Parts: sequence; structure tokens; C-alpha cells
Amino acid sequence: MSNFILQGNLCYSTDMDRIETREHAYLVCLDGRCAGVFDTLPARFAQLPLHDFGDRLILPGMTDLHVHAPQFAFRGLGMDMELLEWLNTYTFPEESKYRELAYAERAYGSFVSHLRRSETTRAVVFATIHVPATELLMQKMEDAGLCSYVGKVNMNRNCPDYLREASTLHAVRDTRRWIEETKDRFKRTKPIITPRFIPSCTDDLMFALRTLREEFDLPVQSHLSENFSEIDWIRELCPRSKHYGDAYDQFGLFGGSYPCIMAHCVHSNEDEQALIKERGVYIAHSPESNMNLASGVAPVNQFLSNGLRVGLATDVAGGSHESMFRAVMHAIQASKLRWRLLDQNVKPLSFERAFYLATMGGGAFFGKVGSFLDGYALDAVVLDDETLDHPQQLSVRARLERAIYLADERNIAAKFVAGMRLF
Amino acid sequence: MSNFILQGNLCYSTDMDRIETREHAYLVCLDGRCAGVFDTLPARFAQLPLHDFGDRLILPGMTDLHVHAPQFAFRGLGMDMELLEWLNTYTFPEESKYRELAYAERAYGSFVSHLRRSETTRAVVFATIHVPATELLMQKMEDAGLCSYVGKVNMNRNCPDYLREASTLHAVRDTRRWIEETKDRFKRTKPIITPRFIPSCTDDLMFALRTLREEFDLPVQSHLSENFSEIDWIRELCPRSKHYGDAYDQFGLFGGSYPCIMAHCVHSNEDEQALIKERGVYIAHSPESNMNLASGVAPVNQFLSNGLRVGLATDVAGGSHESMFRAVMHAIQASKLRWRLLDQNVKPLSFERAFYLATMGGGAFFGKVGSFLDGYALDAVVLDDETLDHPQQLSVRARLERAIYLADERNIAAKFVAGMRLF
Repeated sequence: MSNFILQGNLCYSTDMDRIETREHAYLVCLDGRCAGVFDTLPARFAQLPLHDFGDRLILPGMTDLHVHAPQFAFRGLGMDMELLEWLNTYTFPEESKYRELAYAERAYGSFVSHLRRSETTRAVVFATIHVPATELLMQKMEDAGLCSYVGKVNMNRNCPDYLREASTLHAVRDTRRWIEETKDRFKRTKPIITPRFIPSCTDDLMFALRTLREEFDLPVQSHLSENFSEIDWIRELCPRSKHYGDAYDQFGLFGGSYPCIMAHCVHSNEDEQALIKERGVYIAHSPESNMNLASGVAPVNQFLSNGLRVGLATDVAGGSHESMFRAVMHAIQASKLRWRLLDQNVKPLSFERAFYLATMGGGAFFGKVGSFLDGYALDAVVLDDETLDHPQQLSVRARLERAIYLADERNIAAKFVAGMRLF
Repeated sequence: MSNFILQGNLCYSTDMDRIETREHAYLVCLDGRCAGVFDTLPARFAQLPLHDFGDRLILPGMTDLHVHAPQFAFRGLGMDMELLEWLNTYTFPEESKYRELAYAERAYGSFVSHLRRSETTRAVVFATIHVPATELLMQKMEDAGLCSYVGKVNMNRNCPDYLREASTLHAVRDTRRWIEETKDRFKRTKPIITPRFIPSCTDDLMFALRTLREEFDLPVQSHLSENFSEIDWIRELCPRSKHYGDAYDQFGLFGGSYPCIMAHCVHSNEDEQALIKERGVYIAHSPESNMNLASGVAPVNQFLSNGLRVGLATDVAGGSHESMFRAVMHAIQASKLRWRLLDQNVKPLSFERAFYLATMGGGAFFGKVGSFLDGYALDAVVLDDETLDHPQQLSVRARLERAIYLADERNIAAKFVAGMRLF
């Protein structure tokens, strides 16, 4: 079932500075993994089922490294505030609705169905504090055929009563129950420890999450250095930390021996960047969100050149859209304005690097994901770009670039995740 | 034929800081113009044909104040250079193809058909130097039912031989012929004097264009203060001018007694801004293009507060997409990064102001256009936002905001230009 061949115009990163394009080539999938790209199909594979996609483009599925499923319901709304005010005004009231399963059913149904139709094959997702709704979301993600980590959010301070875990004890009890109920339930959907961010969690909750993380050997996700007011707040809340990242590290929730994602890192200073690198923390670069909330622009090209791990994220609903194509576009655009307006030492992102971020960069959080190199999981998106009409012939490389700027889910003709065809 | 009534949820600017929303209201159109918005239809209009659009949104059509029709063919490509290199590498080779009418037929056919389906009802367009292709474009714009000014481009220096008017004499002869052939040929499509920009035109050609402009009483469009290298170049080319705008003014091509559009104005200094205001020059703010070509961000909120005339533009193919919805989004996003990264004295654009720019702001170049206030031309776009699903009821104002971020041409259910229904 997961042994087959895709034929079409293959486009994939081989490293962060190179996109390989292979016209009318064959991509062999064995046991859900890439097993070679060929211009002529070797005889030994002649018996495998062949999906011939003609002149269409075939690219690796994209990984959205940071997205808030409950916020999808207010995407494209409330773009007139900075982070902390935005959380209190729009986000927390919306997230509180997920205490009701009927609402979660509708809202998560919408989120998952949009994600399924999109170019995203893998995602790392924030849910809310509510266990039943989070489990519902995980079931929906699993049923959609996507691969994901989903986090029940922890928050027990600096948030309204209606969206606060009643005590650290309650929080730990709920989180433990959720982990036990979900860690082995799904094939493609796994739990991830998810303190919202330090201001939302008391110290004892943070330490308790560290203990749970160790007990169940789970990865971690949170937010880091997104906004100046947030960073000032951390200085008050954690006066003994050298920087925001160090504060997570002191709580034992900053990677190292286990996978960890920190969203944003817009304003991470040199020391923080050094610790991110040392701990192997993944940065979820969220360019549209960082524009919409007027946070700024992370020096993502510098992160890449310095060997930090970086992926791309929509950060819905800081970002307005689930499309990772749009995220690639926004990453390039934001990097150009950062270069022009702020710092000419960090060059704009090339198309190659932005595409890499969306595929191999974030995909690495899931292992060998985001390319068609041998051994990579067969995540693929088949793009029909005929509607993006052009008066002349274009190279495959040119078609790929313009599809990022112009294509949407209508252009996705087929989608495979880990060797399984979704549509 | 152009007396009728639209019923639906009306959304329109009344000034730059206010969007009026009227639920399930009636918009009366008499002789192609708005003749009142009513919650209950007055008896005197009861005999007019009624288009009932139910729960859909109805907004004014949008004006794209600056778009290069021939560049539509390479939209979404070649986003890796700044202006002057980009012109030489991508733009000029593409524009030279329009010497062949067969190519122009294909490429302009694509451009016009996309524009017709979009939220744009009016546009101010650059063509190329070629008279036959420019006339073909004008015919297609007319046939599509859009209102536009279209400019045959003038350029006779600092451009490749294959895209250069052979001499000032040739340029003037061609331009005169084109004006004479088109000025009265169309109902909705008019010529506009279009020197590409000062570096492309010798002084004698600029003075000759001034004379033609006066003779035929035409408006003018060109480019101004987009990029630092361009501005440096103007200092060399026009050493006696106080600034780039003053150089146009010395050639007699900077508005005052006639309408004039200058695209970009990203780096206009105070003196230039003062002259723009004094001459009543329209600024075509092109946020996506200014990001893609790493030009910067114009202080458009300050322009508005200071009483300058500003509209919004896609500037395809500096901008990747013909969508004015995207242009509104990009205008807000770019203004936030400008505020965050460069200058906290100019606040980010509000949604109200960005919407105003796309409707009333640029519409004013065409007269009373871009609102549903009495006397405004009936340009309307009917939006079906049902596919932008939401788990709860939303206000009309909220639906409008999210449609800007999320809608595309699929959501446009009907379109009217100057009282004529296009679809």
C-alpha cells in the first residue's frame, strides 16, 4: 500500500541553498519512504503502482511548526493590537469557548478540514487548556491523515479566570490524564508539553511540566522573545535568568536531550541565540504573525547561516492564513524589509532558503521529513499550476517560485503523508 | 439599464477613518450613480429592478492606481533583485515581447481576464512603448467593462536597444498617433501620458511630452522616489533640481492644473512631500512591490494625516498578485514593520485607512468613485464569504475585515462598474 511511484516534475531542497528540480522524473516510495529519484525507471520497480501526474509539480509536503488550532476561528480578525493586549482582547475569550465540545467540534472541524486541503502535511499545534477538546482535535487530526504534535495548553496565572487552570495540582492532574490517554492512542498524532509562555505559568507549574516531560519522554513547545513588552515582563518575572531562553532553561524546558520548539525568537539576543543553538532548540519562524502583531522580524537568514535549527510557521491566528505558501512569501518579504529598514548585515532570505524552511527546516522536527532524498518520509504535494496562466513556457524552477506566490489549495491536485494518499 | 437597486450588507468608507456598515440595506443606483442608502426602500423606488444579494457583503469596487499590464506575465517571478537590476534583468526583456501582437494578444488577454474577475473596477495602467499592443490592451480593457487609464510608455535612454524609442522624434510621433487614435475611441478607457521615469527619458522627450499633454489635456503617470539608487541617479541626471519631484516639475509633468499619479514615494523627503501636496499629485502606494524589491515602506499614514492624496496599487509585477485585497493586507503589514523597525512617529495603518486607500483614496482619481455616498459612481463588488467559514455569527464589519485577509476572486459573486453589471 505504501510502495508506489510518483511521476512528475519533482522539486525539493537538498540543503538550505539548493533546490533540485527533476523534470518528468520518477520518485520511488517504499514502505512510506523515498527510495530514489530516477529519470528512467529501473526495471526492478516496474511492478510498482505508478501515479503519473504528467506535467504537474511534485514537492515535499510542508511542515507548519507552530499553529494555534483554536485561533483559526478568528483568523483575519483583530489585527490592530500588539501581543499582550491582543491575547487579552481576542485570544483568551475565543479560547475559552473550547470548554464546550459542541463548539470545539465545529471550530476544530473547520481548522482540520482546511489544513487537510492545504500544502501542510505536518504540524505542531497548540490547542487550549481543555482536555476533552484537545483530544477531539487530536482525533480529527489523526482522521485527516496528517502527522502532528498537539499540545494541551498550560496556563495558571496572568490570564482571565475563565481560561485559567484552577491550580497547579489541577493542571498537572489534567495534563497527566491527557498524556496517558493520548500518547499511544494515535498513529500520527502525539502529545507535546505546552506551557503557553512563562508569564502564563507559575514556577511550580513549569517545574511540574518538566517532571511530566521526563516521565513520558515528550517534546516541548512554547513561545520565546516575540515582543518587547513580553521580554520586559520576563525580566520582572524571572529576575535571576540571563535572558528569556535562560528562564525556560532553568525550568528544564529548553531542549537539549529532547526536541523543543520555540516560536518567534524575533528579539533573541546573542546569548539567547547561542543557547538555542547549544540546546538544539527549533525556532518556529512566524513572519506573518510577527508583522500582524507588529512584533518585528527575526534575523532568520542569520539563524540559518549560524547553524541554528529553524522551520516556518503560520502561527494562526497571529497569521491570518493556514497557507504555508503564504508563509514562504511573507518570510521573504519580511526579511527584505528587515534588511532595508533595520540591519543591512543580514541579507534577505533567498527563495531557496525560504522554501527549505517550509520543507526540510521544519520537517526535521519529525525526523527525515521535507525532502525527496533517500530515506525521507514520503510527504508530497502535487501542484496543478495550469490556472496560473503564463503566455510562454516556464522552467520547473520558475513554476515552483510563482506557485508559492500565486497558488492556493485549488491548485493542490493530490497529497501524500508518510506514504499515504489523502486525496 | 443603469437604474436599479442592490440589496445586501453594505460596507463603504465615508471618510478615511470611518467605514459605514448597513445590514440588509438598499443601495439605489440612478443613471449609474449612487442615489441613496436605505434601511427601508422608499416607495418612489419600488418600481426599479432589485438585485437581492441576501446576506452577502457589498463593497465599493477597488481602484488599482498603478499596475504594469505587460509584467503580469512574470508575476511571482524574479523577486531576488532591487529595482534597477530587476528592470534590466526581468522587466525589459519581457516588455520587449509586446512588439509582437500575437504575444500581446495572449498575455494581455490573461491580464485583463484576471482583472475582470478581481475586486478591481478601475485601474491606471502602464503598457509598453509599442502602440499596436497598447491599443490592443485598451480595447481589451474596454471590452471587459473596466474603467481605466492606459499609458503607452515612453523611454528613449538608459534602456536596451530592443526596448528603446529610436529617437525623440519617433517617440513623439508614435505617442501623438496613439493619443489621436485612442482619446475618443472608448467609453471607459482613456490614454494617459506615461514617461517610464526620468532616467528612461531624455530632457527633450520630457518637454515634448509636456507639450503633448497640454495639447490633448491628458493626465500623467510616472514613478517617484522608489529606490535609493534611483534617487542618486536623478541627482546626477538632474543636478539643478531640488529633488526628484522637482525634476518632474521642471519638466512640467508634476500635476497642478491636471491630474498626475506618481507611484511609490517611498523615500520622498519633506520638500518633495510638500510639492506633492501643493500640486495635488496622487501617490500610488505599492506596498507589496516595495517589499518584493526591497525598496522600503512609504509613510503612508503620515501622507494621509497631512492631507496628501493617496491610493493603493498592486504594481504588478513588482507586486506578485492583481488582488487589491492582498494590497490592503500588505499595506497594513508593511506599515506595522515600518513603525516597529524604522520610525515610531508614524503609526501603523488602521484597517479603516487601508480600506479607504483601496476605495475612495485611489477612486478619487476617477472623480466621485470608491464609496456608496450620494453621487458616487456605482462601482460595486458583491462578496460571498460563506466559504470563509466561522463557527459563530460575525458582525458585518468583522466579515469585511476577514474577507480582505482571506477572500479571493472565488468569493466575488457579482461586480458592477459605473452602473453596469459585469457578471
